[in-house]
Amino acid sequence: MAANGAGRNVVYAQSGGVTSVINASAYGMVRAVRKADAGAQIFAGLDGINGVLDENLIDLGQESPDAIEALRYTPAGAFGSCRKKLQDLDKNQAEFQRILDVLAAHEIGTFFYNGGNDSMDTVAKLATYTKRQGAALRVIGIPKTIDNDLPITDCCPGFGSVAKYNAISMLEAGLDTASMSRDSTKVFVLETMGRHAGWIAAATGLASRTDEEGPHLILLPEVPFNPNKFLQAVTRSVAAHGICAVTVSEGLQDDRGQFVSEVGGKDAFGHSQLGGVGSYIQLLVNRETKLKVHGAILDYCQRSARHVASGTDVAQAIACGEHAVALAGQGLSGVMVTIERTSERPYRWRIGHTEAAHIANQEKMLTPDMIREDGYHITQKFRDYCLPLIQGEDPPPYENGLPAYRRLKKALAPKKLPAFKAAKGKE
Amino acid sequence: MAANGAGRNVVYAQSGGVTSVINASAYGMVRAVRKADAGAQIFAGLDGINGVLDENLIDLGQESPDAIEALRYTPAGAFGSCRKKLQDLDKNQAEFQRILDVLAAHEIGTFFYNGGNDSMDTVAKLATYTKRQGAALRVIGIPKTIDNDLPITDCCPGFGSVAKYNAISMLEAGLDTASMSRDSTKVFVLETMGRHAGWIAAATGLASRTDEEGPHLILLPEVPFNPNKFLQAVTRSVAAHGICAVTVSEGLQDDRGQFVSEVGGKDAFGHSQLGGVGSYIQLLVNRETKLKVHGAILDYCQRSARHVASGTDVAQAIACGEHAVALAGQGLSGVMVTIERTSERPYRWRIGHTEAAHIANQEKMLTPDMIREDGYHITQKFRDYCLPLIQGEDPPPYENGLPAYRRLKKALAPKKLPAFKAAKGKE
Repeated sequence: MAANGAGRNVVYAQSGGVTSVINASAYGMVRAVRKADAGAQIFAGLDGINGVLDENLIDLGQESPDAIEALRYTPAGAFGSCRKKLQDLDKNQAEFQRILDVLAAHEIGTFFYNGGNDSMDTVAKLATYTKRQGAALRVIGIPKTIDNDLPITDCCPGFGSVAKYNAISMLEAGLDTASMSRDSTKVFVLETMGRHAGWIAAATGLASRTDEEGPHLILLPEVPFNPNKFLQAVTRSVAAHGICAVTVSEGLQDDRGQFVSEVGGKDAFGHSQLGGVGSYIQLLVNRETKLKVHGAILDYCQRSARHVASGTDVAQAIACGEHAVALAGQGLSGVMVTIERTSERPYRWRIGHTEAAHIANQEKMLTPDMIREDGYHITQKFRDYCLPLIQGEDPPPYENGLPAYRRLKKALAPKKLPAFKAAKGKE
Repeated sequence: MAANGAGRNVVYAQSGGVTSVINASAYGMVRAVRKADAGAQIFAGLDGINGVLDENLIDLGQESPDAIEALRYTPAGAFGSCRKKLQDLDKNQAEFQRILDVLAAHEIGTFFYNGGNDSMDTVAKLATYTKRQGAALRVIGIPKTIDNDLPITDCCPGFGSVAKYNAISMLEAGLDTASMSRDSTKVFVLETMGRHAGWIAAATGLASRTDEEGPHLILLPEVPFNPNKFLQAVTRSVAAHGICAVTVSEGLQDDRGQFVSEVGGKDAFGHSQLGGVGSYIQLLVNRETKLKVHGAILDYCQRSARHVASGTDVAQAIACGEHAVALAGQGLSGVMVTIERTSERPYRWRIGHTEAAHIANQEKMLTPDMIREDGYHITQKFRDYCLPLIQGEDPPPYENGLPAYRRLKKALAPKKLPAFKAAKGKE
């Protein structure tokens, strides 16, 4: 891995909310590094960039081949993730210098950062600082977010699997609700993640292949919520189909741009953390229509549901990890791996890259032509975009009735530097 | 199927909350009837016993062989289920007589009722009424309930799959929470179904193979909830493992036997329908410990999650449907099919039967020796009981990235009787 006098070793860190396939990117990275330079040491930050700052570096050389292989199918962050965002360079030079010092102490020439918008901000800043200092370090971003809201890349590893899981959950719960509707529940509400963009909520629309099949209504963050119009649509659906299955995004906003979960759900939940909008919608429908309502909030289960991951997503996550190593080998820095769609029918993709600075702090929303005119469902355009991303099954191996997920040993490399104290900064 | 002068045709009806495998029992029944008497017509009640009372009989002869085959892997109630419980014989003879009239009009000699405790009450009553009237009808119960609370039978079709799904959900969300715990969420709360018995909540305990792995605490209906003791246990778990993953049963009760969801969650939810206890536990922990808390409420998703059904459960559901036909062939009536455990290691089972009256309105709870001494986890005894029931994977076929579940045509047989009006009775 050595180039331009940089250290031959590499470090990898995970950042932000985890996914079903983030470890698959780590797996791709490890495989590619070992192929490129069998003598390079591979470290991973314990709990993301915290581990780099604290010099808590997991030594992957001490993990068994089985444990490395299991990264391919073990969900969540195998090395620990973080919610830490580095502050601006001019405010916090000490932290950036600390990173360079830790990396130099372990002869590390490449830093792979696996995360979303905020993490690419860190990649860009660290690459800038590195160049300013004349240090020989390559900083490469590997995309990861269930939210699918990174610009430039066609999609993000993690999204295809959360899309598949949520679409299946809606399909199954919709069948359940339909079978009970004569005497019992008539409205079912599924709350999905997605803070600012409606990609995950929209993906549940793939479950409705006919008007009869749920979701009958999808409440997206991109469409301001109008309670009266929504309640009318619920009533119409129950009249037409006997039931109404509703998907609501946690990021649903009212016409003043405020989160419905904070406005409508505040009394009931007493905290501003997102996640209460599903309960609010259930209450609203039950109070105003008197129909029996049930609802599910899948929360973390959705982003770690590796048992039903998308095969396409797994393949792309691995490819992104592998390609990050290729980019480092070319001496690039401050870039992020991207996924490019080269053909829609049949779906074909390849791996590319872009400047991390173009990704940092940006959010890609659903485009208007992906949202049905009444605001309550998806269009064929969205189906064409999303359906390829949930294709393929890649179940994990099972052991004793449960997926054979593995936990790593996480043995730390001996420290070479004194401890570091810095101002805390959180994402 | 004809015996003792009874009609050769059969009718099947689904009752109560649906499961991932109730249609697999229907599949087993259809297969066995066709094998026993290829000329017998098979009907199914539309929306359970409602369809029998209303003479809305789905004619299975009009469904394609593919659609029948798909019953094996399509979750929820393919024919519609019901929440209707027939009233006592002396109060409501007209309804019982109506059932006999409808069955006689269609030359039906066997009634298969696929349900739980309340449905077996109906089986027993209808069999009694039939005998009293000297009618030649066999009434056979097929067990079904995710709650696993029927006595005598070792387990209930539907339970193994909901157990597997919830254990996997806890396993995956536990990994997720652990990877975020340094900077973010430290407590995760999973709410499971199970109104009066803790079987489903306890099953999530299979995910914790070591003390480190969640669930760290399980809140069972069988153990009165003590908030202070619980909060101390949460704090201890976070100190020891960095996180605390909690499973809570919707049926959790306080020391006066009141549902915690109704007492603690009433202000927040304003209705007495169960389902709010997960939110209450989240609020309680966050308010009293200030730790960051997340939570999932899987609701209907858990009982329809056929995508990750237990292979053992599917096999038993099919066998129960098949054996119901054998019992009818023997001329029995007022009985329910049971599953008997003939060996624990290795696990072996066979099919038996019992009087439906012995099942009716009974509830089987977890026994004290299945609950850890502190009340917060399971014992080896429970593991030995439950682990065999989640063994085996039996994924449905996929089509375009989603399970290829099928909807039936549900063509109704022509009516032969005038309409019937009766007092409504609900479960």
